[in-house]
Amino acid sequence: VEKTYRDIFKWGEFGKEEELNPHVIEFLQKALNVDVSKKQKQGNAIVQLDKPCSLSPEVIEQFASICGAENVSTTDVDRAKHGIGRFYLDSLKARDCVIDYPPDAVLYPRNETEIVNILAICEELDIAVIPVGARSSVTRALEATRGGVSLDLTKHFKRILKFSEINSSVTVEAGIMGPVLENFLNKNGYTCGHFPQSFEFSTPGGWVAARGAGQASTGYGKAEDMLLSLRMVSPKGVLVTKDYPTESTGPELDRFLAGSEGIFGAITQVTLKIRKYNPENSAKSSFIFRDFENAVAAMRDVMHGQFGFPHFFRLQDPEETELSFQMAGMSGGVEDMFLKLLGYNPNNRSLMHVIVEGDRDYTRLVMRKVAQVAMRYGAFETGKKPVDKWLAQRYSSAYLREPFMDIGVRLDTIETSVSWENLIHLWSSVRTYIKSRQNTFCLVHISHCYENGANLYFIFLSKMDTDNEIQSFTTFHKGIIESIHKNGGSLSHHHGIGKMLRPWLESEIGSIGKGMISAVKNYLDPKGIMNPDTIV
Amino acid sequence: VEKTYRDIFKWGEFGKEEELNPHVIEFLQKALNVDVSKKQKQGNAIVQLDKPCSLSPEVIEQFASICGAENVSTTDVDRAKHGIGRFYLDSLKARDCVIDYPPDAVLYPRNETEIVNILAICEELDIAVIPVGARSSVTRALEATRGGVSLDLTKHFKRILKFSEINSSVTVEAGIMGPVLENFLNKNGYTCGHFPQSFEFSTPGGWVAARGAGQASTGYGKAEDMLLSLRMVSPKGVLVTKDYPTESTGPELDRFLAGSEGIFGAITQVTLKIRKYNPENSAKSSFIFRDFENAVAAMRDVMHGQFGFPHFFRLQDPEETELSFQMAGMSGGVEDMFLKLLGYNPNNRSLMHVIVEGDRDYTRLVMRKVAQVAMRYGAFETGKKPVDKWLAQRYSSAYLREPFMDIGVRLDTIETSVSWENLIHLWSSVRTYIKSRQNTFCLVHISHCYENGANLYFIFLSKMDTDNEIQSFTTFHKGIIESIHKNGGSLSHHHGIGKMLRPWLESEIGSIGKGMISAVKNYLDPKGIMNPDTIV
Repeated sequence: VEKTYRDIFKWGEFGKEEELNPHVIEFLQKALNVDVSKKQKQGNAIVQLDKPCSLSPEVIEQFASICGAENVSTTDVDRAKHGIGRFYLDSLKARDCVIDYPPDAVLYPRNETEIVNILAICEELDIAVIPVGARSSVTRALEATRGGVSLDLTKHFKRILKFSEINSSVTVEAGIMGPVLENFLNKNGYTCGHFPQSFEFSTPGGWVAARGAGQASTGYGKAEDMLLSLRMVSPKGVLVTKDYPTESTGPELDRFLAGSEGIFGAITQVTLKIRKYNPENSAKSSFIFRDFENAVAAMRDVMHGQFGFPHFFRLQDPEETELSFQMAGMSGGVEDMFLKLLGYNPNNRSLMHVIVEGDRDYTRLVMRKVAQVAMRYGAFETGKKPVDKWLAQRYSSAYLREPFMDIGVRLDTIETSVSWENLIHLWSSVRTYIKSRQNTFCLVHISHCYENGANLYFIFLSKMDTDNEIQSFTTFHKGIIESIHKNGGSLSHHHGIGKMLRPWLESEIGSIGKGMISAVKNYLDPKGIMNPDTIV
Repeated sequence: VEKTYRDIFKWGEFGKEEELNPHVIEFLQKALNVDVSKKQKQGNAIVQLDKPCSLSPEVIEQFASICGAENVSTTDVDRAKHGIGRFYLDSLKARDCVIDYPPDAVLYPRNETEIVNILAICEELDIAVIPVGARSSVTRALEATRGGVSLDLTKHFKRILKFSEINSSVTVEAGIMGPVLENFLNKNGYTCGHFPQSFEFSTPGGWVAARGAGQASTGYGKAEDMLLSLRMVSPKGVLVTKDYPTESTGPELDRFLAGSEGIFGAITQVTLKIRKYNPENSAKSSFIFRDFENAVAAMRDVMHGQFGFPHFFRLQDPEETELSFQMAGMSGGVEDMFLKLLGYNPNNRSLMHVIVEGDRDYTRLVMRKVAQVAMRYGAFETGKKPVDKWLAQRYSSAYLREPFMDIGVRLDTIETSVSWENLIHLWSSVRTYIKSRQNTFCLVHISHCYENGANLYFIFLSKMDTDNEIQSFTTFHKGIIESIHKNGGSLSHHHGIGKMLRPWLESEIGSIGKGMISAVKNYLDPKGIMNPDTIV
């Protein structure tokens, strides 16, 4: 029972817990004055929801007759799991077994026809439907605010339907897990090139539905850039697009269906671009700059250099650089001393990670060019070791939140995209806001670069409030969003809108832009049953 | 009078006529048995339309009070010009001064507010509005099938509003002419990288509205790929999107507004990506292959090579290769003899043009890699001369249609995009259809390549029918579209849908896909005044 309960809110693999290393513990004690001995590892109660399933036995029976009784669940554990994502407050509340909006039932349809039939019943009876993949949403997209059913595609929609080397594409069912797809491709000499931090617990359907980005998206593009075609079951019927490389047959449908987070229908199938996989060719290096401004200028020049692009292209701001040194136990070490001697000083220096993939000569050329640009901005090349270190923990760092929360530490992230022109101003303004809260660390990195701008990923870290952490966090978090919104950043670069950012959407895209989305929503889902209260 | 009249249908600059060179004349005489002495250079009648302007003087006065009397025209010449594009039948009919669907008036608004006011009157009085740029549509997008007004933005919407090196973007009003923008950028060391064959007579608003592609689109992307943000005046109001490099704030609005060909509103402003302009770095070369299939496989391998991409990447099929040899007077010459000796035989061989732009080391690397791939498929490198020849006539060849028509020769083109998997089949099937018409030449090239497929551009050439060329052409042309449609090609890669391809759209994108477009149309333009009968 204990394990199951913690599994509801815990990031990642069942039973897998990340331990805090001694440097992290030392940091938490010193910098945040956390008492690490007061560890409260929640998760030892029985999962019991306040709200019982509100669907009648007859309705449940109807669902069971469509997709089999074994594919309909009304257990509290399943309902709890499907009612939350991986947002900080999701986890925080779930620790007390508080699940605000669990679905009434979880359905695991076996094919598109079953989804069509489920949607027909739900339209008739006005039951909300929330299509879900691997449930790593951090925008409250999965909450069943009006009850209803979660439509979980990870159980039966996981086939690889077509692998085409000639088209350089793969067609898969939407619920296949990222690593399963990637392993298949790797064995055939290809990669999907999509590695969100949630990679282990993510699906192609989810990637496309939220317009996600992976860690290599600077080279391979975001989910919508990789999307060639899809199938979606909406209440209006089944939408099928074609896998032309591009076309000019009026407005682009794929790009409007992508990012719809379940409000139009359930994505059941996607055809994605794939690329040749030659990890032995990868060029890896890192560079340290004297300050963030010079490092950003270097990144920008690389993106404007017309010599190709890195695939992974990351830049830690001074505070993140410093904390990553400390948490790796490097502060005060030989490398640190050496860097200081060279004028790369703590709290100013900024670390850049670069990986170029592809053809061997190409990766060498691009890395040489990146190094030239970096040198022009006064960087010192720190080699591939920091990149390998980062790679080693690129998925596992997400597991840290649970041990942090166990000892009363608040850790959450928020992200945005911004034009180069506004980047430094946005970074500085949002940091100022975050740092205005006493004793709060603000680690920022750029992890996705474009010719016309980049993303900014803010990590904030502090002790939890002892009084009312939920209220305290909510107010603070809202302030960060407002700070991003008013200082020229998008509401989201790759997490989507969900229910969390919905209140700001109209101000972001305008009432007419929002009206366009609603118009399509009303057409595809006239009764409004699909993931209500999300996006619009 | 004569000049004005010919100017209505003639491609290109006023008074500029392309003369047929002796090789072309010889070819037309021999291959098509055309009597070149019987030259009938139409255009010597007075422009007089059957349909008088149906708008009342009061309405015209209302428009004049909004944008000034000098910006309202009801002359037959202006109405005729704005009622046709550059489709073959447009020109053919216009030669007899037949303009099927002229607008009642042409308006040249001076700013967005005037457009808002014009649309308000038009909504109230149910007057159709057709936003136009430089009128090079080949899909009958400009026809005023329900009368109404053409909204011409080329007179007053031509300012460059913002040039941002840091963002690598430029913000322009929608009606600026392509060359004016490009010259400005070139002088500042940048390029827009968008060079449709209609470049001289095209505008950024038109590029985006039809999702156009330029000759360098393999490297720089299509118009929608270059689009960062736009402003559009719709009957519902003014839509404004933001210039983030990307975002995940729900469905992508820019990509749905692009390709809308005036049916949602008038695009008044666009922010486009720009790139550094270093023509001295360009690598140019050409390769001849023994057959089309090997050449296509080489193109595909280049696009899959993960070493960067050419910017211009073109492949002529055997018939186009042959005719380009003949029309350049090269058939039977030294180069031809030499190539034959090497086994590159007429009617099988296929010529590829490659230009790589950007950083000097990058262009050298990519060209070296392209050459390596080409050699693997048995190509012979024919150097940069053929590329320079092609570049010299890359816009002027469009001027050839008038002298051709003057001597009774039919010449038109149609284009599509297709996955690599279906490319050879589609090429062969459509060719078979076109060649089934007696004594018809079919020249095909690929001019835009992607990782997942390419476009196919079909040029067909024959004598006009003596009986009823309009009916004969219409039937034949419809057959080509159907052949493309049923053999796996998109309805259009870069010309758009207009009124010409509209009958096939539902079969192409499905009734639900079409319904999505209509839903947005009904929202932004509830009275249906914007470019009626176009796309949906």
